Amino acid sequence: MKSLITYNREVRDEWFEVLNNLSTEELSKERKSGVGSILRTLFHIIDTEYSWFRAMYNKNDIQIYFEEFNDLQSIKELSNQYRKEISVFLRQWTPSDENEVVKPSWMTETYKKGEILRHIIAHEIHHIGQLSVWSRESEIEPVSSNFIGRNIKT
Amino acid sequence: MKSLITYNREVRDEWFEVLNNLSTEELSKERKSGVGSILRTLFHIIDTEYSWFRAMYNKNDIQIYFEEFNDLQSIKELSNQYRKEISVFLRQWTPSDENEVVKPSWMTETYKKGEILRHIIAHEIHHIGQLSVWSRESEIEPVSSNFIGRNIKT
Repeated sequence: MKSLITYNREVRDEWFEVLNNLSTEELSKERKSGVGSILRTLFHIIDTEYSWFRAMYNKNDIQIYFEEFNDLQSIKELSNQYRKEISVFLRQWTPSDENEVVKPSWMTETYKKGEILRHIIAHEIHHIGQLSVWSRESEIEPVSSNFIGRNIKT
Repeated sequence: MKSLITYNREVRDEWFEVLNNLSTEELSKERKSGVGSILRTLFHIIDTEYSWFRAMYNKNDIQIYFEEFNDLQSIKELSNQYRKEISVFLRQWTPSDENEVVKPSWMTETYKKGEILRHIIAHEIHHIGQLSVWSRESEIEPVSSNFIGRNIKT
């Protein structure tokens, strides 16, 4: 499952590169779907992933606000910062974690860690699919969504 | 990994339900990104998945044409038909398959089965993300992309 996290990391970083070619206006443009704009989508992916990882490792949820990270560079730095912490969590992951039950502070339900990990993975890929539509609207070639050809260890 | 295949199946079937509310015109409308329309996207997801599964199990690739499946009902039937065969393949899957090398007939490269399985999974989620944008353009509420809450065995 970690290979899909690696995939998401590579794809996200490639998007940061590609989106450098878009104006702040295009990046911030309100869209009719998802969470509303390219920047908000990136922020949402990063915030969601981090919140779930913290919940899995019994850390309190950290509230962050889009208004404080509303440009590409700030969001990229946020991504890199959180990634370091998430890597520490990932190194702690053992097969028995799969069935460990977690109660996130912002929800009433409990979930297994294995379920949460898959949720995080699918969540990012889904939102990246939205970016692929919006980038074309802005005349930008989307990043390849291929898993094959990346030589990611499975 | 099979749990993400199950997730994709559930989500795809929910999209078939939701898209029943769209006119053929909306379903066939040419879009600027992805493979071009909602119907073409569904067809492409199904065709791609099946081709990869057949390649993994040393079956010849079956060429199908969108023009023969260009309405929602036909695509749904195709999905159900292929799914039965894919379920047989999935039941044969063993952990050692992960590293088995495959050379698909339509490519020059070789890939590990584990890599192909992840490719299939990410491919569908990515394209479904595109549907979520187009459905909003057509005033249709998209299907939830949540993995959590579906009670899928991990």
